[in-house]
Amino acid sequence: MPKFDSLYSKNALSMKKSVIRELLKLTTQPDIISFAGGLPAPETFPVEDLRVAADAVFTKHAAKALQYGTTEGDNDLKAELVKYEARQGVTLTPENLLIVSASQQALDMLPKLFLDPGDYVIAGRPTYVGTIQAIQSYQGKVLGIPFSTDNDGFDMVELEKRYARAVRDGKKVKYVYVIPDFQNPSGICWSLEKRKAILKFAYDHDLPLVEDAPYREVRFMGETLPSIYQLDQQGENRGIVINMKTFSKILVPGARVGWVMAHPEFIQKLVIAKQAMDLCTNVFAQKWLAEYLKTGKLYAVIENTCKLYRDKRNHMVAMLEKYMPKRYDLTWTKPEGGLFLWISLPKYIDTDQMIFKAVERKVAYVVGSAFYFDEPEHNAMRINFSYSGFEQIEEGVKRLAEVVKAEIEAHEAGPRGRTAPEGM
Amino acid sequence: MPKFDSLYSKNALSMKKSVIRELLKLTTQPDIISFAGGLPAPETFPVEDLRVAADAVFTKHAAKALQYGTTEGDNDLKAELVKYEARQGVTLTPENLLIVSASQQALDMLPKLFLDPGDYVIAGRPTYVGTIQAIQSYQGKVLGIPFSTDNDGFDMVELEKRYARAVRDGKKVKYVYVIPDFQNPSGICWSLEKRKAILKFAYDHDLPLVEDAPYREVRFMGETLPSIYQLDQQGENRGIVINMKTFSKILVPGARVGWVMAHPEFIQKLVIAKQAMDLCTNVFAQKWLAEYLKTGKLYAVIENTCKLYRDKRNHMVAMLEKYMPKRYDLTWTKPEGGLFLWISLPKYIDTDQMIFKAVERKVAYVVGSAFYFDEPEHNAMRINFSYSGFEQIEEGVKRLAEVVKAEIEAHEAGPRGRTAPEGM
Repeated sequence: MPKFDSLYSKNALSMKKSVIRELLKLTTQPDIISFAGGLPAPETFPVEDLRVAADAVFTKHAAKALQYGTTEGDNDLKAELVKYEARQGVTLTPENLLIVSASQQALDMLPKLFLDPGDYVIAGRPTYVGTIQAIQSYQGKVLGIPFSTDNDGFDMVELEKRYARAVRDGKKVKYVYVIPDFQNPSGICWSLEKRKAILKFAYDHDLPLVEDAPYREVRFMGETLPSIYQLDQQGENRGIVINMKTFSKILVPGARVGWVMAHPEFIQKLVIAKQAMDLCTNVFAQKWLAEYLKTGKLYAVIENTCKLYRDKRNHMVAMLEKYMPKRYDLTWTKPEGGLFLWISLPKYIDTDQMIFKAVERKVAYVVGSAFYFDEPEHNAMRINFSYSGFEQIEEGVKRLAEVVKAEIEAHEAGPRGRTAPEGM
Repeated sequence: MPKFDSLYSKNALSMKKSVIRELLKLTTQPDIISFAGGLPAPETFPVEDLRVAADAVFTKHAAKALQYGTTEGDNDLKAELVKYEARQGVTLTPENLLIVSASQQALDMLPKLFLDPGDYVIAGRPTYVGTIQAIQSYQGKVLGIPFSTDNDGFDMVELEKRYARAVRDGKKVKYVYVIPDFQNPSGICWSLEKRKAILKFAYDHDLPLVEDAPYREVRFMGETLPSIYQLDQQGENRGIVINMKTFSKILVPGARVGWVMAHPEFIQKLVIAKQAMDLCTNVFAQKWLAEYLKTGKLYAVIENTCKLYRDKRNHMVAMLEKYMPKRYDLTWTKPEGGLFLWISLPKYIDTDQMIFKAVERKVAYVVGSAFYFDEPEHNAMRINFSYSGFEQIEEGVKRLAEVVKAEIEAHEAGPRGRTAPEGM
């Protein structure tokens, strides 16, 4: 190997491999049932309509779609997104929009624009692992905020306390990051009160508020609440909310297209960052999605996706109830949307260790610890219900329950049942 | 506007807008003849074959192409690239390859992996503006090396001198960046001797050598020389060369797909960086290009592109000879490949100022100063010959020559002919 090690930047040294993506590799064996990924159900992809839309691009826009595009994004796609968001009550001009190479790119831009080494981002404990990775790749840190026991958003008392302490300690906190709709990994949906409270917190402290909303439209129960972006628009309209969306969960991830909604001046800042990152997002894919959006068929796709995910979520919850041991210290979330359940296990179970037994038993999950920047909890896991079929969900949960039961039994059998620690 | 200014990172403050992309906006008026962009000729795009390949993706690989993919890149595309490179004498395994969201993304990864604020990259004076931007976005710096008067690569004496001085001054130099085939912006093609010399320099100083090769196959005259990546492979095979390529100049830029060839261990480093940047490159586009490559038709497209560009380059050179004033201090390169000519003007002409007059006269170029990290030369410009039609090339050069002549005449008329400086 070339001797590059002494040359790497501090950024490079602070980067961490994605546990999820490493797990995904583990789980490519065909007989494993993987609840690890965040993959949408391929049966929701409107393949024929997308084929027709792609073909229309070749007929109508070939020279443009195959050429370089602007960094800001394709005007046709932006026009369609303005209409799409209007249907959801969001008023936009194209200047409020930046097209990105899916929302992970936007997640990478934010620490690039805001974080000097050692600076902090306020985010959930737990929170999306890709966000943590992006922050780490700029040597940033996370000021982790636990969720309230009501599962309705941050514990606001803790937020105020931890923020005040951080400021007192001279820490530079640069922005707030939240996923109010069906948080990854917890599935938590923020209440209206908490949405208003976090917006007020951002106003009070002059902090940008990043609202990551990939699952917002994937609501299969309950009432849609206003996004924080909307609350700002309808209220003081200070333009401090940066909302991020993607086609990955509502249409197809393979197109790698997302969009950022923000104040036009901030969009211009993002554009400068993006110029050096990839010049422009896949032009063909932008024209293709614009053609598809023009058909108006996306709404029905989202509706069907929600129905399917509701059934799958209900099935997974039913299977957990059927197979998992019934204990006060073994619980799971029952989300009204999104793609994931979050299972909390007895304190003594370390899911980082248990994953090897699970993979042996041909079932996979994401270890809960992956979703913490520091001081991880080890007794939780994230499981996905969107990708697997109904029979796989039953079989997978059954296997997972066996693995969990074995852990509990080994613990309850006492030290005799366990490997004696060294020195004993 | 939200009060974000005090929150921006030092990275953000060191970012600069791309002069080229700003110029491109200026030149969207339909009656302007723009030699500013680096756009390939749309008439080279094999639209029908690409349509068929895209359609085949829907028929054969829809579920995979529309889903998330691996960060490393699609295996089908990698297999095709292994064959493609083999035809050019490069021996690869898929582990030597990373698929990127076009080469600008790779240009962004390198400073991310290697540069701490203030660290240096060795690069040409001038060099590609997107490389400078990427380096600046990590607060990196460029140790600029002038080209030899033989136009065959770096002035190696200056390289040794400037490198030694930098090391003596405690500067951290992290890698070498070169574009040996038809350098952007100068059009210079490095001689075999210079290729060997820069490789030896990298060996001697244990530096990674980044070989940016977007135009390598766009050679329309002369003999192809081995790439530096090949020279390493065929010689000491130390694996320190990182070669970057893209479909943007040999097929279509709109697909936003490129590839990096490097030592497998370094590829794995890039993968970790890429995970946090965009998870994976457009999966549909990767499958689509793989299908297209399988037809074997790319080689004919490249051949036709080269023929067309040779004709356009010859035409542009002929028009420059026809319309430009004949002077020892007004010269242009005559490249054997690539997309650009580099025009050097009399010292007293500042192309940063002249651009406004040119745009008024409905012709555009890129100011030479954009291609310097520091201490820019102001009496040069880059003009593109791939995009415009033959009549446009004649008309555009004619207009440009008028603008240049007016500058020369104003200068030769002496102070009377110019605006009197303040205080005179």
